[in-house]
Amino acid sequence: MPSYEYARPALTTDCVVFGLDEEDLKVLLIKRGLTPFKGKWALPGGFVREGEDLEKSARRELQEETGLKDIFLEQLYTFGHPKRDPREHVVTVAYYALVNLSEHPPTADTDADEAAWFPFDDLPKLAFDHSEILASARERLRSKLRYSPIGFELLPEKFTLTQLQSLYERILDEQLDKRNFRKKLLKLEILEETDEIEQDVAHRAARLYRFDRKAYLEKQEAGLNLEI
Amino acid sequence: MPSYEYARPALTTDCVVFGLDEEDLKVLLIKRGLTPFKGKWALPGGFVREGEDLEKSARRELQEETGLKDIFLEQLYTFGHPKRDPREHVVTVAYYALVNLSEHPPTADTDADEAAWFPFDDLPKLAFDHSEILASARERLRSKLRYSPIGFELLPEKFTLTQLQSLYERILDEQLDKRNFRKKLLKLEILEETDEIEQDVAHRAARLYRFDRKAYLEKQEAGLNLEI
Repeated sequence: MPSYEYARPALTTDCVVFGLDEEDLKVLLIKRGLTPFKGKWALPGGFVREGEDLEKSARRELQEETGLKDIFLEQLYTFGHPKRDPREHVVTVAYYALVNLSEHPPTADTDADEAAWFPFDDLPKLAFDHSEILASARERLRSKLRYSPIGFELLPEKFTLTQLQSLYERILDEQLDKRNFRKKLLKLEILEETDEIEQDVAHRAARLYRFDRKAYLEKQEAGLNLEI
Repeated sequence: MPSYEYARPALTTDCVVFGLDEEDLKVLLIKRGLTPFKGKWALPGGFVREGEDLEKSARRELQEETGLKDIFLEQLYTFGHPKRDPREHVVTVAYYALVNLSEHPPTADTDADEAAWFPFDDLPKLAFDHSEILASARERLRSKLRYSPIGFELLPEKFTLTQLQSLYERILDEQLDKRNFRKKLLKLEILEETDEIEQDVAHRAARLYRFDRKAYLEKQEAGLNLEI
């Protein structure tokens, strides 16, 4: 058994994975198979191994517990209140991600008893301080969307302005004024109008747009305000 | 000696403290008294005690090593590459702060051999991965200034627009166009014009302004764009 001159807090990683589908914003949770909080829902995560990189540890636990892999993780915040785990002082480095649920359907066959997507607006009571971590990730996601083009990663290459607005509304959890949204967005000049329109729709077919990443990066580099 | 079932990374905190004076942006460093990197400059920081809150740990180390206390710290990022410390796997939770140097003069009498403020543009070679941590904090400070009113904390209650612009220029490390800066700023309607002017100046005395925190918070709440 490894021993040290001074007592050390334990170190874990936890992942808040948001999933977006046509309906709403969801969160990936696992049902804990072990004490403490056995049988309760929690964020996927676990202990960091000595010599293991933090993000690698987060990815390993996520895959082991939910089957999800190869997604873009970003570090959120490190939570270290001495009483956040009833066993001992456990410091957790939290990560978050946003994935398109049509590309990442729920999986079975994992370390955890169960893994499932829950609507953000209808979550079970969570283990540890995971509700606090989740709230913090939700806030980060909201502000991130305002200042960076994460939304476009979740749309098909060509999309309508209605699809884009709906995505913003689901992430921000607020209704946006159609006229204002379009005006602001087109003024940024980061969308490229294609000469195509929607196919197979009952309503009047709308114009398809494409995200102009090059224009976006140039404007960002030039320090222009790209807030939507 | 405490022992555990599995080996654990060690956990530290480090602080990037930026100081602003009339001239430029400075960083508070300490000279290491112990190996590794003995005699080299580094960020103030040290080991987190079992049962100790992360931010408290950062504050304790900062005060022990530099004498600095009662400042506003914000968590920056957690760095955990397994090889970032030559001794063993050490994960560090980095914090950062921005202080007004006229209120926080350099201090002696500390745990470290020496503590000193260095101009950001003329830093010594740093121990560990502290240059990387510092660069990350510098970037955060820059974007933070764009999206939040941290600048006002560093000015006297009443200030001229020239003073405010100079503060922005030192933090962003770029020259700003006077006319544009004023136009953007006044358009935000977060400054209150006082009926006072500068005293005891050789040049034509300028109008003094006050930060209208209430207006700022209301606009922020309403989701208005307050980027400068």
